[in-house]
Amino acid sequence: MTEAAMPSADEIRGYIRERSNWGRWGADDERGAINLITPEKRVQAASLVRSGRSISLSRDVPTRPGPGNPMPAQHWMRSMPGPNGGAAIDYYGLVFHGYVTTHLDALCHVWDDAGMWNGRDPQREITGNGARFGAIQHWRDGITTRGVLLDVPRYRGTPHVTIETPVHADELEAIAASQGVTLEPGDALCVYSGRESWQTANPAWSGYAPPSPGLHASCLRYLRDHDIAVLVWDMMDAAPNEYGLAWSVHAAIFAYGVGLVDNALLQPLAEACAEEGRYEFMLTLAPLPVVGGTGSPVNPLALL
Amino acid sequence: MTEAAMPSADEIRGYIRERSNWGRWGADDERGAINLITPEKRVQAASLVRSGRSISLSRDVPTRPGPGNPMPAQHWMRSMPGPNGGAAIDYYGLVFHGYVTTHLDALCHVWDDAGMWNGRDPQREITGNGARFGAIQHWRDGITTRGVLLDVPRYRGTPHVTIETPVHADELEAIAASQGVTLEPGDALCVYSGRESWQTANPAWSGYAPPSPGLHASCLRYLRDHDIAVLVWDMMDAAPNEYGLAWSVHAAIFAYGVGLVDNALLQPLAEACAEEGRYEFMLTLAPLPVVGGTGSPVNPLALL
Amino acid sequence: MTEAAMPSADEIRGYIRERSNWGRWGADDERGAINLITPEKRVQAASLVRSGRSISLSRDVPTRPGPGNPMPAQHWMRSMPGPNGGAAIDYYGLVFHGYVTTHLDALCHVWDDAGMWNGRDPQREITGNGARFGAIQHWRDGITTRGVLLDVPRYRGTPHVTIETPVHADELEAIAASQGVTLEPGDALCVYSGRESWQTANPAWSGYAPPSPGLHASCLRYLRDHDIAVLVWDMMDAAPNEYGLAWSVHAAIFAYGVGLVDNALLQPLAEACAEEGRYEFMLTLAPLPVVGGTGSPVNPLALL
Amino acid sequence: MTEAAMPSADEIRGYIRERSNWGRWGADDERGAINLITPEKRVQAASLVRSGRSISLSRDVPTRPGPGNPMPAQHWMRSMPGPNGGAAIDYYGLVFHGYVTTHLDALCHVWDDAGMWNGRDPQREITGNGARFGAIQHWRDGITTRGVLLDVPRYRGTPHVTIETPVHADELEAIAASQGVTLEPGDALCVYSGRESWQTANPAWSGYAPPSPGLHASCLRYLRDHDIAVLVWDMMDAAPNEYGLAWSVHAAIFAYGVGLVDNALLQPLAEACAEEGRYEFMLTLAPLPVVGGTGSPVNPLALL
Repeated sequence: MTEAAMPSADEIRGYIRERSNWGRWGADDERGAINLITPEKRVQAASLVRSGRSISLSRDVPTRPGPGNPMPAQHWMRSMPGPNGGAAIDYYGLVFHGYVTTHLDALCHVWDDAGMWNGRDPQREITGNGARFGAIQHWRDGITTRGVLLDVPRYRGTPHVTIETPVHADELEAIAASQGVTLEPGDALCVYSGRESWQTANPAWSGYAPPSPGLHASCLRYLRDHDIAVLVWDMMDAAPNEYGLAWSVHAAIFAYGVGLVDNALLQPLAEACAEEGRYEFMLTLAPLPVVGGTGSPVNPLALL
Repeated sequence: MTEAAMPSADEIRGYIRERSNWGRWGADDERGAINLITPEKRVQAASLVRSGRSISLSRDVPTRPGPGNPMPAQHWMRSMPGPNGGAAIDYYGLVFHGYVTTHLDALCHVWDDAGMWNGRDPQREITGNGARFGAIQHWRDGITTRGVLLDVPRYRGTPHVTIETPVHADELEAIAASQGVTLEPGDALCVYSGRESWQTANPAWSGYAPPSPGLHASCLRYLRDHDIAVLVWDMMDAAPNEYGLAWSVHAAIFAYGVGLVDNALLQPLAEACAEEGRYEFMLTLAPLPVVGGTGSPVNPLALL
Repeated sequence: MTEAAMPSADEIRGYIRERSNWGRWGADDERGAINLITPEKRVQAASLVRSGRSISLSRDVPTRPGPGNPMPAQHWMRSMPGPNGGAAIDYYGLVFHGYVTTHLDALCHVWDDAGMWNGRDPQREITGNGARFGAIQHWRDGITTRGVLLDVPRYRGTPHVTIETPVHADELEAIAASQGVTLEPGDALCVYSGRESWQTANPAWSGYAPPSPGLHASCLRYLRDHDIAVLVWDMMDAAPNEYGLAWSVHAAIFAYGVGLVDNALLQPLAEACAEEGRYEFMLTLAPLPVVGGTGSPVNPLALL
Repeated sequence: MTEAAMPSADEIRGYIRERSNWGRWGADDERGAINLITPEKRVQAASLVRSGRSISLSRDVPTRPGPGNPMPAQHWMRSMPGPNGGAAIDYYGLVFHGYVTTHLDALCHVWDDAGMWNGRDPQREITGNGARFGAIQHWRDGITTRGVLLDVPRYRGTPHVTIETPVHADELEAIAASQGVTLEPGDALCVYSGRESWQTANPAWSGYAPPSPGLHASCLRYLRDHDIAVLVWDMMDAAPNEYGLAWSVHAAIFAYGVGLVDNALLQPLAEACAEEGRYEFMLTLAPLPVVGGTGSPVNPLALL
């Protein structure tokens, strides 16, 4: 990427404001770019299942405290023995947003000063009893679509993206071309950046203290150009961004209505794609329907 | 069902003990009947996707207190406004086992006095730090298979199963025949008994205080005869059982290694199946990989 | 109580608005009527300790689900055995406000349309990161003062207050006179109404569904006339109130800055007072200092 | 402290085993050394209140993630506006044991291979539904006694205890003598070691990764010699201990039945004691009565 190609602040703001999808599916739409996934698209996704190999894109739910996990998930268990048998039950306490748990952001999760998805006012829509607009239950029927993996480390020949080398839109185009895949409307784009390798090399990194490696704000253009419905990624917004944006790539949520799966585990899928020599598959997301919730922990499944 | 057909206590114990799957996939197997779901089975499941209709089999995560919901899920939200934008995040606290939340039981969830799945000793395997055998993460790659719905209310011409009329194995055979479907090894059997209708008619019923309507212990035989991998049901074990069993249909977990999806929402699927005139579909379960967990809340998806 | 003595809506509003303590300890005061508890008052309280008998005014933390406990406290335990020994630890998850857990309300807990304590605006002061005004940590040094118990069932000769017979201000005056005690500024007033007896007789009552037995709005006058600092009670506001108030006796929080201890266990103290023939004692409240919290579960201690 | 005075492993084991209080208050006693606090002792404690100054010994409930706080407390708030007013309520989720939250350990919290308090077997007494012996509710009536502060930094002329310089029994004797106080049976001993100063100087220290500064195992002898009922401390067991003990000073819980208040905030009290020129006061602990709980977060109050 040459400096000449770096988008200006005005260009980036243009991606977010002028090219937004607000109103595209009606002023009251709460499903966003998931509308691009039609029944036909789901049938197409199912037709991609050939080897029958199933791969989880979820990290373990992060129960162990540590520098990279500042707000661990709670897992408590109770064993209840009885005379003829017994049972064991659990408590799961999850603060899933952030930089550790694999989760799907709902459309109400983030906003900038122009508003939430479809132009709604967060002051009005975000309440103590949950979000009244764009909450996760609007995707209760699940998200099943064609998934496409772009493998950045493989393209670059390095183990992981670094702070100095964020991923740009042009590079995504180049990787897709090199892998021989074409992105289509309604696709789930999976960008593998080498998160597990990065984390192993940087055990104290937690995302809460930038700088962070990841995708450059220019990737917004790529998402919008290809009408991507879902972004599944292991690294997230390169941070800090040089534009003073509240949100850079995360702006795809409120500007385009894109579903974001943060902290995905993409290395096993990258290996499987390389083995099978293909980068498209059926992808399924099954968020928990918490009415008013701003997202859900998920175990995304790729079926090859 | 005539009284003559009612199995004896010895027969029921025989279903659990003599016909168990212990050792069938090796003494150390922790995946149970999910082993019956081969890559070929998944390819077959995908081939069932025709209309592209996607249906959630999950109830809302039950956050509202009430007589039918004695241990509500916790949902707390925090809005974090900033100068250029903001975000909202949640806390989800879930005690998912029981009679309200749609969830998948892991193989370690229940046992009788002969032991857990594969003959393991719960005293040894269930620890304060989680289950060391048969925990939910062994199904982390998800469960995708052919689903078959049996619609009891439609067959009976009544809105829901009652305490006086539990569902027996012979009736499941008869329903399958009347619907023109054949159960095959590795299938997910979805038994719709009219739970939402029952709950509306019995708002104070919570399952913690038997009697409970549901499936008779004889259904164990049906699950085993057909090598079912997963049972998805809206009503559960008819209770109390007349055999003094710690677990009746739930014994399929530790005896056969079957995955149970309790408290599923099956009415919308039943309506879709009736509309499309077919009772088979692609079913996907994507449990959260909590290492050592005894199960997971899930949003099961049926793709027609 | 004769009907003639029933205060009008205007009188009740006058108790709340015209007789408020706003500004009494400065416009920025966040301690309210607890300011009435001076070092001298604490020395006086300590001087009341004669028999050395210590009595808890806390109910058990309510972990068991049931009709009277719609949002049970979570208690989960983990045993961690090691080679030379071991330890057991807990998770406590508490939604302590409401009608079950013994707890102290902070000044930020409730408000009416004129505002929070000292006239602050809840829109501004209540944030997703906690309350910025009147939160519980302002009472972190504890509340130690003279406590006085008024025993309504003993005075009435009935086991508990009923929905038809709320407690009025005049009756509190009469009880104090009959017990030979005089309320003084900075005192903690403990009003025993027979809650445990009521609950046993009405197991399904939970407070979330009025009507509720308890104290009439006229008691506001009594609290203000005597400059009470803390109200410890087992039954709470009689509900619904006939004045259309958002809060009746609870208005003492935002109007006078009084600390309210809801759902106290007062029967053992009532018995001890009757035995010792005195109704004054040292009372101690030790709220957990959660910065920004709207209250705290507490175990109030009476030392006779 | 000279090396000659260092107790041998046999001596330390002797403190724990031969000098234990097992059976002292009966084989079924669940209150331990709190039995030493008689009504007379409480009257004596109240007589120490002179200036009426009240001081909290609790740190803020630790909600902020950070290297020194690996398992943060959960605090979530909900604002519920209504037409005439509103309310705000909280969820508190606490894993209070460990090295951050101020809390009181119950007698069932720890054990060594000889057993729990009074010789009970943890295998039998610690269950998934809570501890059946020595749980926190046995101290529900609160702990009110004479408190004595020993100020180690003041005695040493250093800001805090370090890893190289643990506090020994002999030093506690010397400090008490230099402060002119005598420890008596049933007292609450407060050992101030300069924790906040240590933490500021060592922000990444969390206690979960030894070494840790604090009290040497020899202090067990001091606790037993003086029949201390409660130990309130800001630093805890110096770790690792050179004796291979599962627990060094924490052994006072199961050997002597002493109540331990871990992670107390003692600097403000140390300053007040120095100002008032006296080191004894009334101390109050009011644990939450969680039936079966292994302890409670507390806000200990010192009244001078």
